[in-house]
Amino acid sequence: MLRFDSDYLETAAPEIIARFSKIGEEQNTAYGFDPYSESAALKIAEACGKPNALVKFLVGGTQSNALLIDALLKRYEGVIAATTGHISLHEAGAVEYCGHKVIALPGQEGKLHAASVDQYLLDFYADETHEHMTQPGLIYISQPTEYGTLYTKAELTALRAVCDRFQLKLYLDGARLGYALTSKDADFNLEDIAALCDAFYIGGTKVGALFGEAAVIPDPQLLPHFFTQIKQHGALLAKGWLLGLQFDTLFSDGLYFRLASHANEMAAILKDGLKEKGYTFYIDSPTNQQFIVMENRAMAALAEKVGFGFWEKYDENHTVIRFATSWATKEEDIKKLLSFL
Amino acid sequence: MLRFDSDYLETAAPEIIARFSKIGEEQNTAYGFDPYSESAALKIAEACGKPNALVKFLVGGTQSNALLIDALLKRYEGVIAATTGHISLHEAGAVEYCGHKVIALPGQEGKLHAASVDQYLLDFYADETHEHMTQPGLIYISQPTEYGTLYTKAELTALRAVCDRFQLKLYLDGARLGYALTSKDADFNLEDIAALCDAFYIGGTKVGALFGEAAVIPDPQLLPHFFTQIKQHGALLAKGWLLGLQFDTLFSDGLYFRLASHANEMAAILKDGLKEKGYTFYIDSPTNQQFIVMENRAMAALAEKVGFGFWEKYDENHTVIRFATSWATKEEDIKKLLSFL
Amino acid sequence: MLRFDSDYLETAAPEIIARFSKIGEEQNTAYGFDPYSESAALKIAEACGKPNALVKFLVGGTQSNALLIDALLKRYEGVIAATTGHISLHEAGAVEYCGHKVIALPGQEGKLHAASVDQYLLDFYADETHEHMTQPGLIYISQPTEYGTLYTKAELTALRAVCDRFQLKLYLDGARLGYALTSKDADFNLEDIAALCDAFYIGGTKVGALFGEAAVIPDPQLLPHFFTQIKQHGALLAKGWLLGLQFDTLFSDGLYFRLASHANEMAAILKDGLKEKGYTFYIDSPTNQQFIVMENRAMAALAEKVGFGFWEKYDENHTVIRFATSWATKEEDIKKLLSFL
Amino acid sequence: MLRFDSDYLETAAPEIIARFSKIGEEQNTAYGFDPYSESAALKIAEACGKPNALVKFLVGGTQSNALLIDALLKRYEGVIAATTGHISLHEAGAVEYCGHKVIALPGQEGKLHAASVDQYLLDFYADETHEHMTQPGLIYISQPTEYGTLYTKAELTALRAVCDRFQLKLYLDGARLGYALTSKDADFNLEDIAALCDAFYIGGTKVGALFGEAAVIPDPQLLPHFFTQIKQHGALLAKGWLLGLQFDTLFSDGLYFRLASHANEMAAILKDGLKEKGYTFYIDSPTNQQFIVMENRAMAALAEKVGFGFWEKYDENHTVIRFATSWATKEEDIKKLLSFL
Repeated sequence: MLRFDSDYLETAAPEIIARFSKIGEEQNTAYGFDPYSESAALKIAEACGKPNALVKFLVGGTQSNALLIDALLKRYEGVIAATTGHISLHEAGAVEYCGHKVIALPGQEGKLHAASVDQYLLDFYADETHEHMTQPGLIYISQPTEYGTLYTKAELTALRAVCDRFQLKLYLDGARLGYALTSKDADFNLEDIAALCDAFYIGGTKVGALFGEAAVIPDPQLLPHFFTQIKQHGALLAKGWLLGLQFDTLFSDGLYFRLASHANEMAAILKDGLKEKGYTFYIDSPTNQQFIVMENRAMAALAEKVGFGFWEKYDENHTVIRFATSWATKEEDIKKLLSFL
Repeated sequence: MLRFDSDYLETAAPEIIARFSKIGEEQNTAYGFDPYSESAALKIAEACGKPNALVKFLVGGTQSNALLIDALLKRYEGVIAATTGHISLHEAGAVEYCGHKVIALPGQEGKLHAASVDQYLLDFYADETHEHMTQPGLIYISQPTEYGTLYTKAELTALRAVCDRFQLKLYLDGARLGYALTSKDADFNLEDIAALCDAFYIGGTKVGALFGEAAVIPDPQLLPHFFTQIKQHGALLAKGWLLGLQFDTLFSDGLYFRLASHANEMAAILKDGLKEKGYTFYIDSPTNQQFIVMENRAMAALAEKVGFGFWEKYDENHTVIRFATSWATKEEDIKKLLSFL
Repeated sequence: MLRFDSDYLETAAPEIIARFSKIGEEQNTAYGFDPYSESAALKIAEACGKPNALVKFLVGGTQSNALLIDALLKRYEGVIAATTGHISLHEAGAVEYCGHKVIALPGQEGKLHAASVDQYLLDFYADETHEHMTQPGLIYISQPTEYGTLYTKAELTALRAVCDRFQLKLYLDGARLGYALTSKDADFNLEDIAALCDAFYIGGTKVGALFGEAAVIPDPQLLPHFFTQIKQHGALLAKGWLLGLQFDTLFSDGLYFRLASHANEMAAILKDGLKEKGYTFYIDSPTNQQFIVMENRAMAALAEKVGFGFWEKYDENHTVIRFATSWATKEEDIKKLLSFL
Repeated sequence: MLRFDSDYLETAAPEIIARFSKIGEEQNTAYGFDPYSESAALKIAEACGKPNALVKFLVGGTQSNALLIDALLKRYEGVIAATTGHISLHEAGAVEYCGHKVIALPGQEGKLHAASVDQYLLDFYADETHEHMTQPGLIYISQPTEYGTLYTKAELTALRAVCDRFQLKLYLDGARLGYALTSKDADFNLEDIAALCDAFYIGGTKVGALFGEAAVIPDPQLLPHFFTQIKQHGALLAKGWLLGLQFDTLFSDGLYFRLASHANEMAAILKDGLKEKGYTFYIDSPTNQQFIVMENRAMAALAEKVGFGFWEKYDENHTVIRFATSWATKEEDIKKLLSFL
């Protein structure tokens, strides 16, 4: 069966598997104090243009979001996110479990626009009862968004300006950051992200690693005792070198970018093919996730031969479905998929 | 200055003050184990048609909501509320502070309609990823709503049916319950509320008491160790008889209902007067809160002579304002207010 | 029946009741923005020698402790307290409910000694695994302690020095602060407390008020948005003037100190009488709580005529019991009690 | 350098590495719904004699403890643990972060004895103020303990009886369960553990896996929506098959037991050698961790050639140190170590 359900169907890129097979019975110090983690952290900090950044390796995305957001917020603060944001919907209330309200604002194409956040904040502070309400403390965005779309550098800069104006933090969920950075539409790079955000993570799980996310805090003073907080959240991996080794591999010789780039290229071929066949796109995505609107009976027929994601009901007779490509997607599989459509 | 800003501007009904002045240096056992609290609890349980109900006296509304909702929910559950619900907006994220997501659904005139909650739940359980999301555990409603409107008995019964269908709890915020029960439009009574809800509170603070809310749990088995949970939330009043005495007074000779009824009558006179003068009502409220749309300059002029609530921006030139009456409102003050308009 | 079970058996000092009876149907602005609260806050700030202090009125002791400790701590920090501290045992885990560990250290006579806290902290930071442990963030003490004993000014100063050495906060639970300040053994005053602590509260509930505690934060910059945090904890009293009025009365003409002083004097008479009769004191208390060791059968006989507190088992045949005096205790009642012994 | 600092210095047993190298670009369904996870869960359930048990794979020990304890407890309940228990000290307050107090009771040799827990509970319920205190909800034990010692089957059964008497849950931290099950002193097996505990986990991280712990809940009804709770805690591994594959391997052909058994045998050789050389044992451990008391200068000299754990200060001139063996420890390394002593 052809599977395009997600970009984390495969175990890991061969380069990563290869490095694991080499370390054998080597002994390493636990909790991230091993040479692989140190090397990986340094490579990432440098790639971010922030050689002193705090870089810590975590296991998964929901964990990273809840931990970093909780660490960045004061107890009485909440986080502003798009209603379609991952933390708003699909993380089982992990942010609220840490005690923080998610203030969900409508976005467009998965994105929060600076102007509407600005207006929300102006209205908030104009409301004389605002001290009875959750204080906004942070803006959460994902890049690419849950719909594969991208914030431009100008849009990111505008959000940063809103943060500065109202003394909020800016946090970026980079579960699929590789696909954003290597998108043909990207007008930003990793240094821009690090310059604009108070914290973000570079996703490994969905970009070729076995598992793992690299949390980056450009200004290490911002989160004292972050190690303790990782432990407190149950997010500290005993054998930290398992993460370090992967990110060291991903950030050597541009592997992270190559893996992501391949997935984007495969998605572009798919997109062209879908366009040619006249499919309606739900959204115009320049990254590895493609969303189309499909008639329900056709969808059911397709589901017998192909794995894909049922995204949301479109209308009585149509559904939005998602195809995701990965570093392992082969062009022949795209062709096969197109032949079924 | 004439003040109609809220229904908790005055200290307490004279009957309550009178009882306080009588107890002098009397000594009482702490934490609610005094005869006043016992008597009050019994009177309320009987008024609810649930002689075995657990009735506990708490200090304030936000406290009661957060405590009762937290006690009723499992750790992984959230609470469904209208976007305009008090817990959704004006309680500083107290429910989220306890770890629970508020799942805000659009309502109409401040009310959550059973059909839309039902549809939300059907969609939720139809979504194959729903185990990755906050599990709905409880429906929160306020009666009257934050806009003074009422759920009819049929509407409450329909919400109960949704709860039964999906195994949710039904919780009612009765901060102003007196005004609902004595509204000319009420087709339900306290026994109906107690029969339909898993827990609710009868508000004292906003209905003539110094302070205090009576939490009612019709089935006492539902919340074992509720006393410990009150303490854990910092909600246990050492001198519990201060609450018991007030509710004993309010539930003797129908005082609670008389106080609320007076406020409703004053509001009705005001409403008639406003209608006569041609004001636009923002909402049709049959209780002690009246909302009108006012031109901004007229509003500013009025504000020099009268206290009222700025509710929300209506459009560039108009604002929704609220007048609230209380047990202490005098008819002559209503007339005076109308003369200013 | 003679009752010495606690110092919060009576409703409130007559001066407080009198002021309540005067305000009648007066209308006041809610949430502490009334003239009584403002006046009371100013009087307290001045009595503390900190005219700019943030003074906020809360309802009860457990609430005040949990709220202030949570507000002072970072998310990954815990609070050091004596194993006999009120927060360690008798607050239903309210501090842990807010997410913070109580690090209980053995004390002497209810007191934490600076030297032992210092040693604990030296050992803690010497332990190479200390980043895997709860970071100490605050020292909690109660003055007087749960056993009626006092920290001397030198002892408080030594604890402050430990806090400064290790960058911890110092927090003082003053549920019965009046009895400490007016004890014949006190070598400190309110200004000393305010100079040494980062936050503390002046207890009203146990010193003649109906209810209420005055939270004092000498440096108001320390707790931005504290109002929101009060609301978030469900600790905001709608009719804030009920608290303001009481504390304004207590801090006018030295009433707070007179009420406490009277209780201490009554306790001193009781102490002398108990000594004369040869009772064994469990602890040497210079404040309004007296603890003696009593043979179990004698205790049972006494319990038929007198209310007192069963403190703890002493041995198979003896129990520690507590007598507490209050502003309302009469000398004749002390004599009567002594006659029963 | 010879390293005996811990039992998680090596990446993973070769059998596990081998299986990873086989799966290549195979595609698997996420979140544990893959055939490896299903097979592993079944094997473990059967090994526990509870074919219907709920078995879920988690990433690490602190995570497993916090998640399972939180899932088992009611909101107002705390957990009883030995003062030396891992959750009492070395998990950064992760249990308190979830809102639950750890009620630390003194143990002996790392173990909580049923009689002392029973006495604590009798005293607790005899205390008339116990509803003001954290309600005990669960007993936490580790097997082997943090000191390598074992609960006998009789001791476990006695703790279960205490749980039944007071309606508590019994939870077992099995971070090193393999070493307990294969100890020459073990008079219990996995079926006994599953019959006596409400929940426990079988540790992988410290017994030859890359990472991972198998949570076992013998009665699956006990924890409805446990999947959602895993997600809410940030503990859901996207590529769940990474865990499933490892546990499937560990529970095939008795690998888990063989790995643990080897470490125990190496530890026994070390123990004999240490005895011969006249070292003082801090505790008599029948598992893979050995604790001796060492003179500080000798310890410093040893530290230049050997890695070991500094456990705790013994007296001014001595320290307790720990040697841990693993599946990878070679007999020649034990001999070399002994030659240095």
